[in-house]
Amino acid sequence: MSGEEISNLLGVSRTAIWKHIQSLKEDGYEIQSVTRQGHRLLAVPDRLYPKEVQEGLTTTSFGQSIVYFDRVSSTNEVAKELAAQGIPEGTVVIAEEQTGGKGRLGRQWVSPHGQGVWLTLILRPQISPMDAPKLTIMAAVAVARAIAQVSSVTPGIKWPNDILYQGRKLAGILTEMSAEMDTVNYAILGIGTNVNISEEAFPEELKNQATSLLKEGGTKVNRAKYVQSLLGNLEELYGQLLGGGFDAILAEWRRFSLTIGARVVVTGLKQTMEGLAVDIDETGALILEDTTGQKLKVVAGDVSIRGAQGQYA
Amino acid sequence: MSGEEISNLLGVSRTAIWKHIQSLKEDGYEIQSVTRQGHRLLAVPDRLYPKEVQEGLTTTSFGQSIVYFDRVSSTNEVAKELAAQGIPEGTVVIAEEQTGGKGRLGRQWVSPHGQGVWLTLILRPQISPMDAPKLTIMAAVAVARAIAQVSSVTPGIKWPNDILYQGRKLAGILTEMSAEMDTVNYAILGIGTNVNISEEAFPEELKNQATSLLKEGGTKVNRAKYVQSLLGNLEELYGQLLGGGFDAILAEWRRFSLTIGARVVVTGLKQTMEGLAVDIDETGALILEDTTGQKLKVVAGDVSIRGAQGQYA
Repeated sequence: MSGEEISNLLGVSRTAIWKHIQSLKEDGYEIQSVTRQGHRLLAVPDRLYPKEVQEGLTTTSFGQSIVYFDRVSSTNEVAKELAAQGIPEGTVVIAEEQTGGKGRLGRQWVSPHGQGVWLTLILRPQISPMDAPKLTIMAAVAVARAIAQVSSVTPGIKWPNDILYQGRKLAGILTEMSAEMDTVNYAILGIGTNVNISEEAFPEELKNQATSLLKEGGTKVNRAKYVQSLLGNLEELYGQLLGGGFDAILAEWRRFSLTIGARVVVTGLKQTMEGLAVDIDETGALILEDTTGQKLKVVAGDVSIRGAQGQYA
Repeated sequence: MSGEEISNLLGVSRTAIWKHIQSLKEDGYEIQSVTRQGHRLLAVPDRLYPKEVQEGLTTTSFGQSIVYFDRVSSTNEVAKELAAQGIPEGTVVIAEEQTGGKGRLGRQWVSPHGQGVWLTLILRPQISPMDAPKLTIMAAVAVARAIAQVSSVTPGIKWPNDILYQGRKLAGILTEMSAEMDTVNYAILGIGTNVNISEEAFPEELKNQATSLLKEGGTKVNRAKYVQSLLGNLEELYGQLLGGGFDAILAEWRRFSLTIGARVVVTGLKQTMEGLAVDIDETGALILEDTTGQKLKVVAGDVSIRGAQGQYA
């Protein structure tokens, strides 16, 4: 398309068009420009630039404001600072790379550049802090749905907040909140998804524990499309949760669950428990049944599933 | 005592003694110094300097580290920043005056200079966020005990977190926390106590809602002694809570309670409920019984007590 056509179409000067095209080239867009003929878009960079994510985004709130970083310590840390400063609900912090990405209990989350989706969504739900675990349950369902929508991989949920494929982590969720006794000031949903991570990018000690959509599905997944699907599902489920429809979300969680129906060992802060995982309740607690038929409620811990193929984490 | 005696006693030079005495005078200590005779302490300033609070403090952890301000926006805001930076459990932030003191739901808390005790205690309990309301219950008991110990005023607790005398606020508690789904990163207990606030210091619109130990007891209370008593009780009850002894704390809360046994109206976020307050449960929820005998659980809201003398907040 010629510079003149673009100029007419957008109602801005040809000089402005030229400047924008230079800026797009600097951002990695491959644009062929030929004198007296015009410009041709050859390739879009594999980057989660806000404009790439927002083009095709179907939400009304989630991701309509995106804070983008090429590299950041941790999207959760940035989101907490922004949330404390009053940034609105629905704002999403996205980074191509995290140098200090974290999972639950302060564990490291490997977040190599451009190969995953590392994002944090800021929420301001008018709920009691006691209902906050529902946010993680909802997020797990949204992640599982999005993975199923954009890839050929069938995801499962391991209590409380990991998305697995054949026992290896595809994604993890780290929910954090600032709350008073009866109100949540803000909650942040940190979601790390191993989208296009290559075999080599995983440290040796993680190869048995983590995998990616690329490894399991065999092809690269469009990360922007995954973010669009994820945010769309999050917004839908969040509306449902606030509208009193949590039971349906819990039912969907159960359908994705790898934990329910399995014999598990739960390593908690204070003790280790073993039993048959029979359900989760609406507070997010895992219900175990021990050999005597007694029911135990587990609110925190790490689950090992004892399966037919032996034990995996 | 002569400078020489002090110098011998402490094993420091007389020049150093002289410098320290100048510094004490600048802090408001009235010290009479007579050449060739020595120094005499005439009066200690009415300030919550860490050394005044710590002299006589019986705790092993709480208040052993104090961050003191003459004036600050809000001790909770400072405490949150310090806690996020990793400051240890037991650290206390104290200010003579808060310019932006807050109560629940973002309401203003009047905190005039030198007339109250405005402090925040930083905790790092290994508990589930769902157990966090227990911290507020424990704090209310500690405040009620401390008021009873240092003054002639008999305090009562109004659900969830106000300490009253005859329907007017003596103290309030604002618990805030930063948490993941199953662990608390840190919790802060902000406690504002109207110790020596004079009649004139209360804004007109608060005169029916707030009072002070000075107004009700008729004499000034030593604020440092109150802080010592408060921190001593907090440390004792906190140990009890973490050691599994919450039931006894709840029982003591019930004995101080003004709410239980009263007909109340609770204005919540979404609805208003009316009934007989029959108990609180161990999650901190208020249990109401309506006219049909049905029990309702209230997790958040403002209580108005309908008493024999009419209605008061």
